[in-house]
Amino acid sequence: MKLKIKNLNWLAGRPVVFLNEETAKEMNVFANDRVAISNDKKIYAVVDIFPQIVKRNEIGLSKELTKALQMRNNSLVEVTTSEISNATALIGKKMRGGELTKEELNYLISEIVHNNITEAEIAYFTSAEKLQGMTMGEVVNLTKAMIKTGARLNFEGKYIADKHCIGGVAGNRTTPLVISICAVAGLTLPKTSSKAITSAAGTADVVETISNIEFPLKKIKKIVEENGACLVWGGSLGLAPADDKIIRVERLMNFDIEPQLLASIMSKKISVGSKYLIIDIPYGEGSKIDSLIKAKRLGRKFTHIAHKFKLKIKVVYTDGSEPIGNGVGPNLEMLDLLLILRNSPEAPKDLRKKALFLSSELMKLCGIKNSKEKAEEILNSGKAYQKFKEIINAQNGINNFDEKVSSLKFAKFKKTIVSSRTGKITQISNKGINSLCRILGTPETKTAGVYLHKHTGKITKGEKMITLYSESKSKLKEAKQFLKEFKPIKLK
Amino acid sequence: MKLKIKNLNWLAGRPVVFLNEETAKEMNVFANDRVAISNDKKIYAVVDIFPQIVKRNEIGLSKELTKALQMRNNSLVEVTTSEISNATALIGKKMRGGELTKEELNYLISEIVHNNITEAEIAYFTSAEKLQGMTMGEVVNLTKAMIKTGARLNFEGKYIADKHCIGGVAGNRTTPLVISICAVAGLTLPKTSSKAITSAAGTADVVETISNIEFPLKKIKKIVEENGACLVWGGSLGLAPADDKIIRVERLMNFDIEPQLLASIMSKKISVGSKYLIIDIPYGEGSKIDSLIKAKRLGRKFTHIAHKFKLKIKVVYTDGSEPIGNGVGPNLEMLDLLLILRNSPEAPKDLRKKALFLSSELMKLCGIKNSKEKAEEILNSGKAYQKFKEIINAQNGINNFDEKVSSLKFAKFKKTIVSSRTGKITQISNKGINSLCRILGTPETKTAGVYLHKHTGKITKGEKMITLYSESKSKLKEAKQFLKEFKPIKLK
Repeated sequence: MKLKIKNLNWLAGRPVVFLNEETAKEMNVFANDRVAISNDKKIYAVVDIFPQIVKRNEIGLSKELTKALQMRNNSLVEVTTSEISNATALIGKKMRGGELTKEELNYLISEIVHNNITEAEIAYFTSAEKLQGMTMGEVVNLTKAMIKTGARLNFEGKYIADKHCIGGVAGNRTTPLVISICAVAGLTLPKTSSKAITSAAGTADVVETISNIEFPLKKIKKIVEENGACLVWGGSLGLAPADDKIIRVERLMNFDIEPQLLASIMSKKISVGSKYLIIDIPYGEGSKIDSLIKAKRLGRKFTHIAHKFKLKIKVVYTDGSEPIGNGVGPNLEMLDLLLILRNSPEAPKDLRKKALFLSSELMKLCGIKNSKEKAEEILNSGKAYQKFKEIINAQNGINNFDEKVSSLKFAKFKKTIVSSRTGKITQISNKGINSLCRILGTPETKTAGVYLHKHTGKITKGEKMITLYSESKSKLKEAKQFLKEFKPIKLK
Repeated sequence: MKLKIKNLNWLAGRPVVFLNEETAKEMNVFANDRVAISNDKKIYAVVDIFPQIVKRNEIGLSKELTKALQMRNNSLVEVTTSEISNATALIGKKMRGGELTKEELNYLISEIVHNNITEAEIAYFTSAEKLQGMTMGEVVNLTKAMIKTGARLNFEGKYIADKHCIGGVAGNRTTPLVISICAVAGLTLPKTSSKAITSAAGTADVVETISNIEFPLKKIKKIVEENGACLVWGGSLGLAPADDKIIRVERLMNFDIEPQLLASIMSKKISVGSKYLIIDIPYGEGSKIDSLIKAKRLGRKFTHIAHKFKLKIKVVYTDGSEPIGNGVGPNLEMLDLLLILRNSPEAPKDLRKKALFLSSELMKLCGIKNSKEKAEEILNSGKAYQKFKEIINAQNGINNFDEKVSSLKFAKFKKTIVSSRTGKITQISNKGINSLCRILGTPETKTAGVYLHKHTGKITKGEKMITLYSESKSKLKEAKQFLKEFKPIKLK
């Protein structure tokens, strides 16, 4: 059926068209059905029924389709009812347990990038990845396909390096420290980070408390070239854009899909030009991966892929059984970082130690000798602090670091819980602490979160255990209730 | 964040909200992300960005959400960023291979009916059903949950009966024949049928060539009570509405998901009050199920579920290796049916035979003696034809059967292909014939399709093999090309 195009400036996040009820009836399609739009090639879209916006025989296009079709308002286009696209056949192959070839993965990823398949199909694809698995060959080709369809960065430096933690540990904000230390040591670190999905805060949320984090690629290149590093948000850069779309679908389910996780991390590191990479896999009860055996199994896969791309890699396996650092939540974590960078005696020792370890390992990977001592010297001397300031000032485009830092606040309402007896904290649940912070308002509310006065170990009656921070009295009350009911801190 | 409600009369087929770009940015959500809207209970929706329609701090609701929330324009509602709903946790359980309890399936199906989960999540659910499987207990509970959330019909008659074919065979339009014959024999047959998804025509498409097929439930009840049967479209009746939503997602992938197929068919039969049921499972190369062993495995599952619902069931296994009947396409199939009902010598024998077999089996199941002879007598005597007329006239609300029949036309353009040599037709592919018909314009174009002059067996040079019908010259050309390239008819 020929329909008249109406380009609408509306971002649906997937290819959607609006039809009028009569047109839909004539075509025998329903809301959420799929149609094929034939221009030079066939483009698939799902149908919404919205009579106020389109008249009979008109088709309203979402921004994604306007871009893909490049047709003028009122021009006619052939629209036919749902058919199976080639991409769907490939997803079907994976659903049946087949192995996808390089060409097939290239095609599929390109269709995802160009919004030619629906999110339900992406769900089928990732579900098949999870339940049928992928060979290492497929993961490598998936990684390649995701790099190929995205933007890239290139740097001149000798040691283009990066770090990545697979996450799951509350607090644990090592990135700004590792980046600052290693940049002083002469490494080039184009670091992109994510915002929190289910946790209390992501690195990008924390850096954002005092800094701009969103830049075009050109600007990022400039910041890194001038300062040796950056600490930016990776979300809107268009590095491996297929991955961004896939993540939005899989995050609905709150589980990791291993082949996708591997390809996602590796493609983004390679896209920014990294040649040296340290991967941190925390393991233990209460973290994403519960045993060292499983952690190592995953680590070997990272190593395998890295070698295929001629990347030098070091995988480290760290204790992920409880939160690291004292503050959890954007501002609270930033305050922890500043204490460490300033070598304050109040700085959380576990976070400092882990950051030094990761920095030293990454420096060692780049061939720097006595890396342990060097990392400590860089931090102790205040050079790392100086570098961190420099990066933040560069990102803000003005030397307002001190001003930004002095405006860091705690939330209006707080409540400190003390230990009801002398005994031992046997466990602090990462998931429990993250949920607690989300209830208190993180990551949207930068000032919210918790401060852990104690980690696992001895505690005496009346000693401070945890302080809750929130901008809302009712959220604070809810958090107290959660603490009582789900006991994220186990006391014996 | 509190947002101002704007109810929009727009049917998205899933719970969608419109946000303005600024609002989305403040909330840190992107197109296609999920938000939770808190009213009495939490309702989840996905985000579209549409600045023309909503201002800053406004939230535009799709029809589905307007209905679910029941809130006035300009009232304020709390909207928070994506969280994991309980339904998602249940889908996750199934993804990990867990068994869902009755209560869990009830909850999940109710969430689907109320549009509280996205189509991507439905994809994860059905994908897990396919790859992890379901126990028979789960399938029974799934069936129950789907019935519970839908509309139902009840009839007084002693023998409320139904037939169902799992499909996959081109032509094979037995339903109108079986319904007419069995209605004469005294059975009550509230028959609902579907439209074609990937085939050339569904029963509803064929009946629609001469009849109304869409009615409210009350009207269907009246038609059946007065005429003993109906031949209506089941799509808009709200019987097992969860299934309608699930089917729309799974149809994207073009494969059957067995637990869903079983629950889908059984829930719809039970919802219309059927007590006696015949299930036709065609098998053989080129049909949905390739061997008798697999067909019987599926048949046993139907029997198991039927017994749980105290339904009398008979499963028959029939030859599905090639098309049945000569015409394929809405009008062409209706013309075949009329030839059989009028006992014309040109009527396709295979279709007639199969319809008689199914009718006799269904009558026997209801305890009717000498059912084979009785079915033949009903058809031969013209009583079945009379009943068919009666049903169609009742559905049209006016005695216009003859008029409707005489207006049945063939498409404007046709092309007959004759055999290039004397030999044997060794195979006619169901899928190939269906694809050929779709190219020619079915099911949208009622007059399009093919006429098979021959089935498998001997053929002499110059004998007519197949005639193609289309309203479009270019489609006819495309079909000829398809015939040449993919050879759906194998000649040796």
